[in-house]
Amino acid sequence: MEVVTLPVLHRMAVCGGTHGDEMTGVFLVPELERQRREKGDGIWPIALTTVLSNPRAIKECKRYVEKDLNRCFTSALLSSSITDSTPYEIQRAQELNSLLGPKETEDAIDIICDLHNTTANMGLTVISYSFSNWVCLHLFKYLKEKVTTVPVRLMLLDIPICDAYSLESVSKYGISLEAGPQPQGVVRADIFNFMKEAVNAVMDWIKIFNSGQVIEGGEVESYMVEKSIDYPRDPETQRPSAAVHPQLQDQDFCLLKPGDPMFLTFSGETVKYEGEPRHPIFINEAAYYEKGIAFHLAQKKNITIPSIQAKKD
Amino acid sequence: MEVVTLPVLHRMAVCGGTHGDEMTGVFLVPELERQRREKGDGIWPIALTTVLSNPRAIKECKRYVEKDLNRCFTSALLSSSITDSTPYEIQRAQELNSLLGPKETEDAIDIICDLHNTTANMGLTVISYSFSNWVCLHLFKYLKEKVTTVPVRLMLLDIPICDAYSLESVSKYGISLEAGPQPQGVVRADIFNFMKEAVNAVMDWIKIFNSGQVIEGGEVESYMVEKSIDYPRDPETQRPSAAVHPQLQDQDFCLLKPGDPMFLTFSGETVKYEGEPRHPIFINEAAYYEKGIAFHLAQKKNITIPSIQAKKD
Repeated sequence: MEVVTLPVLHRMAVCGGTHGDEMTGVFLVPELERQRREKGDGIWPIALTTVLSNPRAIKECKRYVEKDLNRCFTSALLSSSITDSTPYEIQRAQELNSLLGPKETEDAIDIICDLHNTTANMGLTVISYSFSNWVCLHLFKYLKEKVTTVPVRLMLLDIPICDAYSLESVSKYGISLEAGPQPQGVVRADIFNFMKEAVNAVMDWIKIFNSGQVIEGGEVESYMVEKSIDYPRDPETQRPSAAVHPQLQDQDFCLLKPGDPMFLTFSGETVKYEGEPRHPIFINEAAYYEKGIAFHLAQKKNITIPSIQAKKD
Repeated sequence: MEVVTLPVLHRMAVCGGTHGDEMTGVFLVPELERQRREKGDGIWPIALTTVLSNPRAIKECKRYVEKDLNRCFTSALLSSSITDSTPYEIQRAQELNSLLGPKETEDAIDIICDLHNTTANMGLTVISYSFSNWVCLHLFKYLKEKVTTVPVRLMLLDIPICDAYSLESVSKYGISLEAGPQPQGVVRADIFNFMKEAVNAVMDWIKIFNSGQVIEGGEVESYMVEKSIDYPRDPETQRPSAAVHPQLQDQDFCLLKPGDPMFLTFSGETVKYEGEPRHPIFINEAAYYEKGIAFHLAQKKNITIPSIQAKKD
């Protein structure tokens, strides 16, 4: 069986507070910094940078101040010129690109692991742009094996890297870790614990990979986002006129079939799903109301990944 | 057995969006207005006023703009003079006091039913200031009998009415209905449905009461708030250094005994409860982080309420 060789991993960043009200990262990043102060850098198998991505939003405990930071990492926005009226988050994205990138260059940091929360029942979801980024896919495979207290899934976004808008796209092998359900502005110990477990598992995998041993490939199951479904809305006010149906609420990654209940209007009528069978994800995420998204629909696909091995520099 | 006679109830207000990110009321008030447009006022047994209390906060989907509106209804703030620098919410509280009060006068509306949500696992909780306000206590008794899809409890605040700070204190018989757990900015159909059921039950009870029939008293179980417990905090940053312990999270109204796990620090240590056995409520409410409250502690007490009967004017 062919083994793909890849460069050793030297530098990694763990980022939290890219959305200032997603509290797991907001508290886990300082906890990593406390560990560093107490025990030194030597506890980690890789040079680790810790980042609180959006300090102003964290201070105000809101998702963002002027513009969603995690939509600001496209190549176009990262190279746009800054004026007095440029939103804070675009300026901050360019700062982070200087610190961790530059995006799409050899100088970019190897891995960004960006910590997020969702109000949806997503368990631990690894989000990646890549269908053939073997490091990301192996990381997911390892997390799925090692983190057993919560379901672990992979969500793939089919977007060219220059148009990829989120922080982790700045690195060579970026993953976003979504943990939920957790309300905005709240830290739950159960979710904090499995996120801590996941970050530790990422570092364990890096240690194994960097040791030079062959890491076996195999099949991984992924969910590829196809499209988004909005809430039914009042034609006059444009406000939602229905909530996610109780039978669909919290059922992220289930199979939604034609005729299944999808929404329940505030006056009590059921709206059924019409379309091909698909897997709904990010069901009833608080931050997506303003984006016109009640949930995404995804297709399940198995991906075969090769065995890999680190090539010493 | 003695029957207490009380005046017929003429006017009631259902208020939502007193906190702009508590979505059940934000959507239920317009639904009541839709019912009125469709079927007319005659569907209700009482003159009903519907109010979206904090329209600016609702628009921004945040708890409040400048100051927590639901802390602005003390007699002192309601009679304070307004200047250009008066926070929006104090001005709005005075407007609402003109509309629904004036507080502590004969002209005040009979009932305010103010709709709230919490991220805590509070089910349906009736909040009232009164230990001897028989209408409020009978309303709770009726809700507990009729709303069976979710636990229904009574939380009592021992505060003189002039210092009572929340909207419902403007009316003669005010109750706040808390429904949870629901993240801020999210509407869940299950919670919307039991809140709708509760508001309908309040109106059913008013119809029965106003008919003049004797409504039997009895014992009701209440939770009286004694004090609040804050998160352990980092002495330097003042940020929480622990989350609510997984064994306590979601266990609102349980009995917390000395030695029971209370917090789990981000470094993994358990902090135990020391104190008299008490019932924790509002555990891990998002909006209380800034108030320095991880949860309240309450004592359970049974209250005997008399039979009551409406006295025709």
